[in-house]
Amino acid sequence: MKEAMKANMEHLLAPKSIALIGVSGDQSRVGHIGATGLMNNLIKFGYQGDIYPINPKYQSIMGCKSYPDIQSLPKQVDCIVIGLKRKMVLPVIEESIKKGIKSAIVITSGFAEDNSIEGKELQQKISEISLKNDFRICGPNCLGIVNVHLNAAASTSSGLWISQIPKGHVAFVSQSGALSSAFLSQAETLGVGFSHLVSTGNEADLHIADYIMYMAEDPNTKVIAAYIEGIRDGERFIQAAEACRRAGKPLVVYKVGKSEKAEKAARAHTGSLTGSDQVYNALFKQQGVIRAHTLDGLLLAAETLVKLEDKRVGNKIGVLSSSGGAGGVIADFAEEFGMVIPDLSDKTSRQLREKLPSFAAVGNPVDATAEIARHPELFIDLAKIMEKDENVDMMLFCLTTLPPIAAKRITDTFLEAQHELAKPAIICWYSGNLNNPDFDRLKHSRYPVFKTIETLFSTISILQKRENPKTNITMDYSSSLMEKKYINKLRNGESLSEYESKHIIESFRIPVTNSELVQSIEQARQAAARITYPVALKIDSQDILHKSDSGCVELNIKNEEELEVSYQIVLQNAAKVMGARINGVLVQEMLPPAKEVIIGVKNDPQFGPVVMFGLGGIFVEVLKDVSFRIAPFDRETALSMIKETKTFRILEGVRGEQGADLETLADILHKVSLMAAALKDEVEEIDINPLMVFPEGRGAKAADALIIGKRVVVYDQQAVR
Amino acid sequence: MKEAMKANMEHLLAPKSIALIGVSGDQSRVGHIGATGLMNNLIKFGYQGDIYPINPKYQSIMGCKSYPDIQSLPKQVDCIVIGLKRKMVLPVIEESIKKGIKSAIVITSGFAEDNSIEGKELQQKISEISLKNDFRICGPNCLGIVNVHLNAAASTSSGLWISQIPKGHVAFVSQSGALSSAFLSQAETLGVGFSHLVSTGNEADLHIADYIMYMAEDPNTKVIAAYIEGIRDGERFIQAAEACRRAGKPLVVYKVGKSEKAEKAARAHTGSLTGSDQVYNALFKQQGVIRAHTLDGLLLAAETLVKLEDKRVGNKIGVLSSSGGAGGVIADFAEEFGMVIPDLSDKTSRQLREKLPSFAAVGNPVDATAEIARHPELFIDLAKIMEKDENVDMMLFCLTTLPPIAAKRITDTFLEAQHELAKPAIICWYSGNLNNPDFDRLKHSRYPVFKTIETLFSTISILQKRENPKTNITMDYSSSLMEKKYINKLRNGESLSEYESKHIIESFRIPVTNSELVQSIEQARQAAARITYPVALKIDSQDILHKSDSGCVELNIKNEEELEVSYQIVLQNAAKVMGARINGVLVQEMLPPAKEVIIGVKNDPQFGPVVMFGLGGIFVEVLKDVSFRIAPFDRETALSMIKETKTFRILEGVRGEQGADLETLADILHKVSLMAAALKDEVEEIDINPLMVFPEGRGAKAADALIIGKRVVVYDQQAVR
Repeated sequence: MKEAMKANMEHLLAPKSIALIGVSGDQSRVGHIGATGLMNNLIKFGYQGDIYPINPKYQSIMGCKSYPDIQSLPKQVDCIVIGLKRKMVLPVIEESIKKGIKSAIVITSGFAEDNSIEGKELQQKISEISLKNDFRICGPNCLGIVNVHLNAAASTSSGLWISQIPKGHVAFVSQSGALSSAFLSQAETLGVGFSHLVSTGNEADLHIADYIMYMAEDPNTKVIAAYIEGIRDGERFIQAAEACRRAGKPLVVYKVGKSEKAEKAARAHTGSLTGSDQVYNALFKQQGVIRAHTLDGLLLAAETLVKLEDKRVGNKIGVLSSSGGAGGVIADFAEEFGMVIPDLSDKTSRQLREKLPSFAAVGNPVDATAEIARHPELFIDLAKIMEKDENVDMMLFCLTTLPPIAAKRITDTFLEAQHELAKPAIICWYSGNLNNPDFDRLKHSRYPVFKTIETLFSTISILQKRENPKTNITMDYSSSLMEKKYINKLRNGESLSEYESKHIIESFRIPVTNSELVQSIEQARQAAARITYPVALKIDSQDILHKSDSGCVELNIKNEEELEVSYQIVLQNAAKVMGARINGVLVQEMLPPAKEVIIGVKNDPQFGPVVMFGLGGIFVEVLKDVSFRIAPFDRETALSMIKETKTFRILEGVRGEQGADLETLADILHKVSLMAAALKDEVEEIDINPLMVFPEGRGAKAADALIIGKRVVVYDQQAVR
Repeated sequence: MKEAMKANMEHLLAPKSIALIGVSGDQSRVGHIGATGLMNNLIKFGYQGDIYPINPKYQSIMGCKSYPDIQSLPKQVDCIVIGLKRKMVLPVIEESIKKGIKSAIVITSGFAEDNSIEGKELQQKISEISLKNDFRICGPNCLGIVNVHLNAAASTSSGLWISQIPKGHVAFVSQSGALSSAFLSQAETLGVGFSHLVSTGNEADLHIADYIMYMAEDPNTKVIAAYIEGIRDGERFIQAAEACRRAGKPLVVYKVGKSEKAEKAARAHTGSLTGSDQVYNALFKQQGVIRAHTLDGLLLAAETLVKLEDKRVGNKIGVLSSSGGAGGVIADFAEEFGMVIPDLSDKTSRQLREKLPSFAAVGNPVDATAEIARHPELFIDLAKIMEKDENVDMMLFCLTTLPPIAAKRITDTFLEAQHELAKPAIICWYSGNLNNPDFDRLKHSRYPVFKTIETLFSTISILQKRENPKTNITMDYSSSLMEKKYINKLRNGESLSEYESKHIIESFRIPVTNSELVQSIEQARQAAARITYPVALKIDSQDILHKSDSGCVELNIKNEEELEVSYQIVLQNAAKVMGARINGVLVQEMLPPAKEVIIGVKNDPQFGPVVMFGLGGIFVEVLKDVSFRIAPFDRETALSMIKETKTFRILEGVRGEQGADLETLADILHKVSLMAAALKDEVEEIDINPLMVFPEGRGAKAADALIIGKRVVVYDQQAVR
């Protein structure tokens, strides 16, 4: 993060003084909402900086001296909270800038989220003025910011009706105000502690990515959790994710908008643009961002990472349970979430057997039985044996409902032993006793604690699935091989014909079928002789996209006689397609049997070119079994992209059949990603369908290809923001 | 349920008097465990029946007169609680029977769940004595029984450390003691009320099915929830499920053992046999049993059904949310769980628009915004508009964290309106405020209430997926067509050859390929002429299961010349298979192109023959995309079985291709189920692989078939129980 930007955000996120405008001196007003409520929260939670309410009608408000206007404020004011009607917001910002104030929290709503043109225009002006004056704004239409370590609750969140904000090391940034309040009031129950809470609002100035980038450098923050509805600037988000990686701070997100309905709801709600969920998924994977599947899971995953510090989360779990029943449920959920309950080594089993009563089950999950109520130290002894087993990455203790005395004893034992275990150890206490003081003691220990088995697995499973992000993809292509005229066509937003598309693809060293473009039957005869029979004939035209359906493809032509007939057929059928420009006829080699795959590229408005991969035919069409990555990416990422599909095993070969050439396939995907990145300003869409992948060691060839030029759309940048 | 059985169970489940043996008069003993703890619970929760502790060392225990032995007990004792060492259990049961006591709760452990032969033998004797004397036993190795409406807490559950048992209409029966305690202590938090709680223990006498059957007729019970590790007697469980249906009481289960590990854990834990999870799934579907996916979900689903009474749970949800963010999350989870957030009619939208502020989103989910904090009655007004929309089956109100005053006001409004809405209405209040008194008020209202969006959807989605069970399948086959000698072969546990298998299949009116069994090349020639070329040749032998792999199949034989060559080839290759008995060679028609499907039958030891269906080849092998039903079943069930597979759309036809003959396929599946049921004592396994399904209206034919006779295994019935 640039130093100037960081310093500016510091005024907003760690303010030494806060002015408030729109604050009322009439404390009888119901429920302290707006700026009045915010000021009340600052005082309630013990903010140590200066508070300057602005209101000419009062001498003092809530015990603080009240100022008649902005000009009369003392010299150094870090941040101004604005809670006036929307038409007053812009003049106040202008005055604040004049006064030398550095930042603002605008809680007023009625801007881009409003259905009015006026609201959108006002927000655009706020964006412009903040950018021009280097004046940082949180909001508008936001709840504000809580810096928990500074007791600075500069927020109107209804989550602040609690008596104490749980302090800790998770920075939470949210694009939903209401949900950020819910998260705040949920935190104590879940055992999560915060460094910061930010409600980003409409993001007229600071985006969610900016806050993430700030938190990556914040010393009180160890893990960043974000609730995301839509990312408006892909580049900025990627930079923020990179900053988190550099700082060694995990970034966990909940991204809404998996469904079309949710996408619509989010758009209606804040006017934010949510891209395709599959693109977000690819982005998160490639950037090492952890994606939570539930709201509680977002907080729990973040807090678990805080507690585990640098301990790696593996997927092989040693389970110690006080209930055989719970052991079974754990095994089921482990499998459902792709985790493993490994078999223990003979040595481990022998050692466990010595410690356990005769009726206890020794296989993993180990059923320690109700015995542990009498001898809680048994749990730790057994865990020390199990964690030494090389098959075990992590220990899980599962408790159910216990008599109070036993619960207390076991908790004491856990707390005493919290520094004794070498591998990560997690506790699940499935017992509804809400006022379980022992569970509360564990929440504040080094153990990540969970209340239900399903929450535990949905949380830890996402931690261990985290991919290692790749950076520094080398662009080892030479674009000079491309014919300029095709590039010009693309820049005009036109499609290329198969012949032209393959030319481009080949220039990126992606193998294509051997083919020649001919304009007469005589040329066709010569080409076929060079290629050798059998051959295929195809019309070459940028205007005929579904060549087979239009009768413009003839396959398996065995000799000159057949060639002549077929040549006439394809030309006649092409002539029936109204207005189609015909470049000629492609004479093409027939390929031996191979696995057909599809590679596609779409240029995403926020994240640039995205590469899609899937097995051809029904696998893509019926099963929608495809995977995505954002271009460019390396061969290893390409391989994980292939392996991610459910139908991947078909490529490996089933029933003793020889496997396909996966090395070549991965290499081609990587090269497609380089091509897509290189042509990101020219290309809207690339389709290689099918790519024929031959058996291992024998390569692959693009049998058909289509490149569509980028449609030139004049974006209304401000409307988008 | 038979009257005698019911009366007997009444003594156990609604006892007027309870004796206890193994109870101590020394109250200083830690934590009231065993029979002493149980007696303490009876008194603590106000049991109104007579309590007779048995202990010669004391005059009275906990204020109740103590009896020196069983013989000296008063005349009428309904139930005796036994908490003695295991070797004492049998003599005490014998004496109790002599005394005229009707039932027992045996909390002592160390029986079938123990790793000793002695324990297993003792349990077997308990089973025998209870059966012979019509003496009903809960346990051994159980926690006991709570009849909540009678305040009879005859249980040692650590869940009883709470001060009050939540009373209601869910009967909960559990094969895990520890988890039943956890469920009990979870109930108050979740807002669930019980009629009964039963820990079934080792089920030496009463099985979980018996309790379910009893609860189906219990007037205080409206819904039955069961935690199941394994069902030992399929027939009894099916009867219990039928009893629930007759009584109009939903049966909801959590069945552990989806994974192999969990199956093992369950077996080690109680020595129960858990069958294949897919068979259980089929069983539940066919019996209209609702399967919960999480532990909390089991209770929540049961309580939701109690609250909704006869209101049908549909899958189209009208959503009213106080937060736009939550609306998006709801849309995502709805899609994930197969529910629908429908578009509203124009009329509904118009009416909503009139009521909402300008910035609120009117599409479903409706974002009522923070406005509802000020005007809570708006929620009800909007709901009344939305529920009139024919696209809406059910209303969902979603709240997030609110200031206390607003929370109270909204709750008041909800409670006032609880009888005003015609369609089911559910509330989700995503706010961690644990001591939210308003949430607690709603828990005891008519609204099902949930704390998280994911819990809500994982619960209600299973309610609406419930299938209508089918009964009275007519067996419209005539087994007289089967050749007796084949049946005899099967009864000897032998396999049948393809020819023999197809004979049996055909006798059940399932179409097979036209084929003839020949013993010479001359016969082959004549057969081929009758069938007409091209034909296939296959060795017919019960000993060669993989005919193709052994070179014993020749396809596409076009004329007599080829026939002679192929005939020699298949015979020579068959001769290489050591010890194979050759019946001859099958001459068979070649079939036109068709979709290949697989139909299989396996005879499950607990539930009888189970039919499997899947698309042939990689779909079964790689994607494991198969569905199961227990035989017999009707055509409609067969059709739902086909449609359940992910690859079903391939049968319907993709890319404008003609669809397969689904009517015939469903009919064949139905007939296979009838055949499987008819031959359940003779057949271990049936494979029709492939069944060739022709385009719509053109039927289907079994191209290959294999029937394996039932292996005669002498079950040690008692060991199994």
